[in-house]
Amino acid sequence: MTPNKDPLTLGAILYEGFELLDLYGPLEMFGNLKPQIEIITIAENAGAVSSFQGPQTVAEIDFQNCPHLDLILLPGGFGTVQELSNEAMLSFLKDRVPTAKLTMSVCSGSWLLAKAGLLDGRRATSNKAYFKMATQQSDQVEWIEEARWVEDGSIFTSSGVSAGMDMYLAVIASLFGENKAMDIANTAEYVWSQNPDNDPFHKYLNLLVSE
Amino acid sequence: MTPNKDPLTLGAILYEGFELLDLYGPLEMFGNLKPQIEIITIAENAGAVSSFQGPQTVAEIDFQNCPHLDLILLPGGFGTVQELSNEAMLSFLKDRVPTAKLTMSVCSGSWLLAKAGLLDGRRATSNKAYFKMATQQSDQVEWIEEARWVEDGSIFTSSGVSAGMDMYLAVIASLFGENKAMDIANTAEYVWSQNPDNDPFHKYLNLLVSE
Repeated sequence: MTPNKDPLTLGAILYEGFELLDLYGPLEMFGNLKPQIEIITIAENAGAVSSFQGPQTVAEIDFQNCPHLDLILLPGGFGTVQELSNEAMLSFLKDRVPTAKLTMSVCSGSWLLAKAGLLDGRRATSNKAYFKMATQQSDQVEWIEEARWVEDGSIFTSSGVSAGMDMYLAVIASLFGENKAMDIANTAEYVWSQNPDNDPFHKYLNLLVSE
Repeated sequence: MTPNKDPLTLGAILYEGFELLDLYGPLEMFGNLKPQIEIITIAENAGAVSSFQGPQTVAEIDFQNCPHLDLILLPGGFGTVQELSNEAMLSFLKDRVPTAKLTMSVCSGSWLLAKAGLLDGRRATSNKAYFKMATQQSDQVEWIEEARWVEDGSIFTSSGVSAGMDMYLAVIASLFGENKAMDIANTAEYVWSQNPDNDPFHKYLNLLVSE
């Protein structure tokens, strides 16, 4: 991927019960790329959206009025379970993911991509403690159990919560160069784990999911 | 500190231009302690508050109507500079920090505590790249240049941005036990740096601050 000189619109997709760090770890890393990146927050309905932890984020725009998205950020969280049967969410993803330059899910965000059929024929990963919940969404996905994140063409999927930060820095490296990504990590005083195969949490595989 | 069995109110103080991960790294760690922890978001005026990176968080309550706070979370960010001359903010901190069980600033949040005189006679740290901005707020503070975070009685101050997550996990360990803190870190697939003296970003001291 060559360095990109045009502004890119990053759409962060919100829903009730999203996990705070799934969203804000990546937004911290991308947020300091202005004016090369413009962030917009999107939900089925505009307005305040409650995280699983409680604090509310403002969704600036609804699905109907959302402009073209170059980059898509799809966080996970316990709210994902409800969204698996939300046709508005699944339709929005089916509509927008194929036209985006890159889609990047964190944690259980990949459950939604799988449910929408967008990971069929691709390699992907997800949260380790609830991994069976991912695999149950589609048997047409090559699910990778041991990975901090997985890249397959235009779709990046990360492991749980914190893993999103490492993956987003890798995406920044691919878009803007590794020096820029390292500058952002250092400025945030973040110890970036650069190896997608370094997954210290694989040992918790399916620890919290019921059979 | 003995394990606490009563619910504690954590007040997250927002202002225009706060840094996303300063706020949401800690809220991720504390947010999964419900019902032992109740999080409320506070600002000078209730309503949407823009982060430095753009996305807006809802402040549920204003300074005037804020209940007693057991725990105070004070993020940093480029917006801190403006708040250094905001008497409403400094007065709120002078009023509430002495009555809180614990106050925990991240990054440049400690500039505000120092400006309010709340760190005088204490040890404290701050963001490494802009450290002189911290020391300029008070010469009555023992500023610690090399530290991931510093604990001095009821006030914890962390280094920049990501350091807040490591410090908040340490606070959770002190309040609820180390096993609970490690559970939260593992569930978030976060590699917790438990040593407050392990500061890999000390080498960037004052790199970005003008003389």
